[in-house]
Amino acid sequence: MDTQQWLQRQFGCRLRNGTLLTQALSHRSVGSRNNERLEFLGDSVLGYVVSEELYSRFPDADEGQLSRLRVSLVKGSALAAVARELDLGEQLRLGAGEVHGGGRRRDSILADTLEALLGAIALDLGIDACRLAIGKVFQSRFDGLKLEQARKDPKTRLQEYLQGRGRPLPDYVLREAAGEDHARIFTVACELSDGDEVAEGVGESRRAAEQAAATAVLIQLGES
Amino acid sequence: MDTQQWLQRQFGCRLRNGTLLTQALSHRSVGSRNNERLEFLGDSVLGYVVSEELYSRFPDADEGQLSRLRVSLVKGSALAAVARELDLGEQLRLGAGEVHGGGRRRDSILADTLEALLGAIALDLGIDACRLAIGKVFQSRFDGLKLEQARKDPKTRLQEYLQGRGRPLPDYVLREAAGEDHARIFTVACELSDGDEVAEGVGESRRAAEQAAATAVLIQLGES
Repeated sequence: MDTQQWLQRQFGCRLRNGTLLTQALSHRSVGSRNNERLEFLGDSVLGYVVSEELYSRFPDADEGQLSRLRVSLVKGSALAAVARELDLGEQLRLGAGEVHGGGRRRDSILADTLEALLGAIALDLGIDACRLAIGKVFQSRFDGLKLEQARKDPKTRLQEYLQGRGRPLPDYVLREAAGEDHARIFTVACELSDGDEVAEGVGESRRAAEQAAATAVLIQLGES
Repeated sequence: MDTQQWLQRQFGCRLRNGTLLTQALSHRSVGSRNNERLEFLGDSVLGYVVSEELYSRFPDADEGQLSRLRVSLVKGSALAAVARELDLGEQLRLGAGEVHGGGRRRDSILADTLEALLGAIALDLGIDACRLAIGKVFQSRFDGLKLEQARKDPKTRLQEYLQGRGRPLPDYVLREAAGEDHARIFTVACELSDGDEVAEGVGESRRAAEQAAATAVLIQLGES
């Protein structure tokens, strides 16, 4: 399967300008005809198309929720995951050093190249074709979005709840770190110094345990 | 001149959906039907259209230069200046508190509302119409851009020059702050501890004086 066939299968389009396609897949380690300018363009194209989609899919979301949903879709790790599903790594053009350094699997390179490809599609075929390509590639992500995901994290919500009532901020106290180094389990207590509320949370990181404890306190407060 | 006439004159279009136009001009102080969601959309539309324009206008610019040029066009103070030229303040719908607080002249409100208007145009008339509207409103800005403006600021360039040669960073020393409070003139010296280079800069803020001093040292180093 050549590169145009791959693009057809994964993005539903072919570029008229084959040189542009090659450039979009070329990491800067290849030389001066690389994809960095196309990445600049593609980043903005993707931001626009995703924003438009979220605006119409979530008529009741406020702008903060829309922003958080957008971040969840376009952050580097999310784009890298999409790129992996598309087998983008096999199409990458890397300098020898990057090949040996594992560049085909690196999040940042995969994410940047996906953006560059979208920039090349917009440039060569226009924004409507690019919108279709993004719709195809992100279809399952769009369909899987729930407004619930755009809620602020539990620690932030607890903090805002308390601040809104003039109460002091909670203390997060590490109670236990059990297990071997590679499989630690943390237990954290969330305590409110001016009230009876206290709850423990458990997680595989200290941060996860804190979030779990904050959730438990929010439940006690009737806020979750 | 009603609002649609104003839009026609300044942006070259009329919205089919008058309610959407009203919403785009409504600050959140007016109530729940405000322009915050449209601002989310418009921000991304503007980022895309400006990026596309810069990509084609500056074929030799690298992605860092393109990013700096984009920031210079879409940062809040730049958008507020555009909004003032369009007399956007007169069209704003503000709650009573914001009217008395000078909301019509506030940079952030003007910039956000300009973005919201562009979002409403994209939503109602499509991206091609919005691209034309942005082209009309930003025409003189686009035409006035020079790649030279995308250079990093003098202090950053001096720092990078020195770091690239393993030399210590410069000291910026305030030499004088003359004049009345409302019209201060600052004089700052830029000194390189390991060399003979030293120069003074003068400006209306300490930062401006530092940049002027850095420029003078860059000239001594043959780098400006």
